[in-house]
Amino acid sequence: MSISAPATVNTFEAKENKSQIIHHVFFWLKNPSSEEDLNSLIKGIKTLETVRKIYIGVPASTELRDVVDSSFSASELLFFDDLAGQETYQNHPLHLKFVEDCSHLWEKVIVYDFVDM
Amino acid sequence: MSISAPATVNTFEAKENKSQIIHHVFFWLKNPSSEEDLNSLIKGIKTLETVRKIYIGVPASTELRDVVDSSFSASELLFFDDLAGQETYQNHPLHLKFVEDCSHLWEKVIVYDFVDM
Repeated sequence: MSISAPATVNTFEAKENKSQIIHHVFFWLKNPSSEEDLNSLIKGIKTLETVRKIYIGVPASTELRDVVDSSFSASELLFFDDLAGQETYQNHPLHLKFVEDCSHLWEKVIVYDFVDM
Repeated sequence: MSISAPATVNTFEAKENKSQIIHHVFFWLKNPSSEEDLNSLIKGIKTLETVRKIYIGVPASTELRDVVDSSFSASELLFFDDLAGQETYQNHPLHLKFVEDCSHLWEKVIVYDFVDM
């Protein structure tokens, strides 16, 4: 017997086209102690604000529990109305220019996209 | 000569007490294909909504670029007015009950806290 996809997960997927997409990106700088590089990266992220409201930040000094990862250098968080909105952003000239201008600064990037339920 | 902390980073820290804290948690289930476990986890996260507005979701089906991590099972995103608000939430009876009731479901948790600039 084959295992069919769980019904509830399918419901999430069906809802996705009309649900908000939350796009969270974490950057780890090649030179994490460089104030200049951090400022350049944040300046770069700020150029994207003309495209969309962005929450931009650095690690907060919350309690360093085992599960907390505070090793990243900077973070950006965006909300999109739907999948199409996220794709438009990815291909927007200002986003492409940001990647071109700033990608030499970072060593690692992790992107998490989730659909709000 | 000792290396002093970069001035800009200090500015970020100084601002932190009055800046919004963004708290993003990712959960990886022990049994990622279990619809029942996912539903139990999400039901657990939803009990926290009485404490604070929470964005709750599952991975979105955005393009699977190299940098995108879509391996997590569920995610919760919360905004706090300040560090104290985040700490109050951590110690809230409903939060402690959620961890007690649901922690057997997950294999891994990553928490990212960042301060909005």
